Amino acid sequence: KKKHNVTLLPGDGIGPEVISVAKNVLNLVASHEGIEFHFQEMPVGGSALDLTGVPLPEETLTAAKNSDAVLLGAIGGYKWDNNEKHLKPETGLLQLRAGLKVFANLRPASVLPQLVDASTLKKEVAEGVDLMVVRELTGGIYFGKPRGFGTNENGDEIGFNTEVYAAYEIDRIARIAFETARKRRGKLCSVDKANVLEASMLWRKRVIEISKEYPDVELSHMYVDNAAMQLVRYPKQFDTIVTNNIFGDILSDQASMITGSIGMLPSASLGGSGPGLFEPIHGSAPDIAGQDKANPLATVLSAAMLLKYGLGEVHAAEVIEAAVLDTLNRGFRTGDIFAPGNKLVGCKAMGEEVLKSI
Amino acid sequence: KKKHNVTLLPGDGIGPEVISVAKNVLNLVASHEGIEFHFQEMPVGGSALDLTGVPLPEETLTAAKNSDAVLLGAIGGYKWDNNEKHLKPETGLLQLRAGLKVFANLRPASVLPQLVDASTLKKEVAEGVDLMVVRELTGGIYFGKPRGFGTNENGDEIGFNTEVYAAYEIDRIARIAFETARKRRGKLCSVDKANVLEASMLWRKRVIEISKEYPDVELSHMYVDNAAMQLVRYPKQFDTIVTNNIFGDILSDQASMITGSIGMLPSASLGGSGPGLFEPIHGSAPDIAGQDKANPLATVLSAAMLLKYGLGEVHAAEVIEAAVLDTLNRGFRTGDIFAPGNKLVGCKAMGEEVLKSI
Ligand SMILES: CC(C)[C@H](C(=O)O)[C@@H](O)C(=O)O
Ligand SMILES: CC(C)[C@H](C(=O)O)[C@@H](O)C(=O)O
Repeated sequence: KKKHNVTLLPGDGIGPEVISVAKNVLNLVASHEGIEFHFQEMPVGGSALDLTGVPLPEETLTAAKNSDAVLLGAIGGYKWDNNEKHLKPETGLLQLRAGLKVFANLRPASVLPQLVDASTLKKEVAEGVDLMVVRELTGGIYFGKPRGFGTNENGDEIGFNTEVYAAYEIDRIARIAFETARKRRGKLCSVDKANVLEASMLWRKRVIEISKEYPDVELSHMYVDNAAMQLVRYPKQFDTIVTNNIFGDILSDQASMITGSIGMLPSASLGGSGPGLFEPIHGSAPDIAGQDKANPLATVLSAAMLLKYGLGEVHAAEVIEAAVLDTLNRGFRTGDIFAPGNKLVGCKAMGEEVLKSI
Repeated sequence: KKKHNVTLLPGDGIGPEVISVAKNVLNLVASHEGIEFHFQEMPVGGSALDLTGVPLPEETLTAAKNSDAVLLGAIGGYKWDNNEKHLKPETGLLQLRAGLKVFANLRPASVLPQLVDASTLKKEVAEGVDLMVVRELTGGIYFGKPRGFGTNENGDEIGFNTEVYAAYEIDRIARIAFETARKRRGKLCSVDKANVLEASMLWRKRVIEISKEYPDVELSHMYVDNAAMQLVRYPKQFDTIVTNNIFGDILSDQASMITGSIGMLPSASLGGSGPGLFEPIHGSAPDIAGQDKANPLATVLSAAMLLKYGLGEVHAAEVIEAAVLDTLNRGFRTGDIFAPGNKLVGCKAMGEEVLKSI
């Protein structure tokens, strides 16, 4: 039997509930596929703060690094919102991404025919949307230095951050994006603000340079403000989008909401020499935490991405994806994607149905 | 007769066409209202580059500064897209904003009942949307230093920009936003990325501090990625939004597209000791320039904002706003907002109809 060590990071809010469902799904698939999982659960985010005083304990990072793949639930909550920066749950997540060196964040956003009505966009605009945002994840303004607080020449308080990209950082994320586009519909749109920012000018220059290695992929460029408009106007125009950390944060969330089913969307963070990090793109939803209302499918689909991109278990991944579709086809819906005529279920029951579909 | 000196900056692409319509509208309103306009047309953007070698000639800035209000068409075009930074049309616009010290950019986005079908959002989501983005316009990453290109310790090329805000910059834009919200529905949402960026942490701290001066305004905070989602999910939740320069660039464009009628949306840039700058939020649309297809209404409504916010001519502004509604009610539409059953007109003809409505 093939053995895989997987670190589970339930995190905060609805994190533990959705991770528990995904773990059951992984275990059942494993038994069918002749795989064996060793799971290690470790604290991260707010719950790690409460437990250990830091948002990413060293033991957690070490366990993650030593495993074959990492599955994260969600982090954050009102309780820690006013913490100082180094004591924020979000800082733990950023340290985890940096620690695993996963510079490439893949965020698919597609509208399933079963869920087209969940979108706030008109049916004819939403249906058929199938795009992938490739977001740079370990650079840019999230990590750039200098950063901090100070005073200006008039003694006035200032807060500052640095948006900075080096050519090698752009080159490597561009290559991942071109590879991704090549496996999809062969179209890549690079989003920047090169009409204003030097960091974006270098971004565009390097993306154009790297495009020479991928003559079969059709490259276009778009300013970020226009991209935010085009995602609303005509999202079907996009296949693969590549962009920096902060623009990717904004646009991938916008794109996910355009599908109307953010509770369905997984993500993969790759590119380090070690394990990849897989997580649903939704947050910790503290308002519904512990109430068995969360939609576990984004985490289940993140587990599928973990199998495919993280462990090379492509068949097992496809079994999970098919089971999720089958569960939807049988009419089961959590509250976030519920429409009259469907069967409303909670987080656990949704998990049970996926197990049945497998 | 009251006299007002107005600098007209037609700029590039469809700029000259829409400015010409707005000028006629201003002149007709003036004759009814006992006002007299002195117009001075000056070059800016790509057309200034072609004419003088710089995107904002000194004469243009001086003329603008010496006038009572400035009306801009649009700037930019493919032709100059690969220019170096100091020779980009966009740089001229940024120099103009900085030169006039207009730090507060007001961008209303509302869905007119006549145009609700133009939105790609479902009718029940789009109808009744009426929000205002107050964008900081002369600070942040657009202007922060240091910026430029260089090499890192490995000799790799880097491009960098600085996102920086001083307390006084945040305080003054926050006050404008609270005043704006007070005149609207009394709700202000401040958008930042305070879970990651120090510049945003200071932003949030100062906005909270200033909120004490406005106990009658209800203040909330939202992360920018969530704001991009909420604008798609349920845009009606927003009244007034205040945010920094780059987030405001992205979110105001997204909000405008949510109305479905970006060709209808004006903007006002205020806050300097001199004149305000008024411009449609749409771009220069080089693909339809010179074809008499542009929608002049955003510029006509910008002229109304110029009258109201720039010159204190509130009644004249209302006459223009009413005339625009009347023209729509009479069924006239340019291509961008056309739907079957309406009367399709070009830019000039739309201008004529507005004149008739006045
Ligand atoms: C929680 C936060 C730090 C994080 C980010 O901004 O990257 C989140 O919004 C995301 O997109 O994964
Ligand atoms: C043209 C460009 C420099 C400008 C900006 O980014 O501010 C435009 O997008 C806008 O929003 O007015």
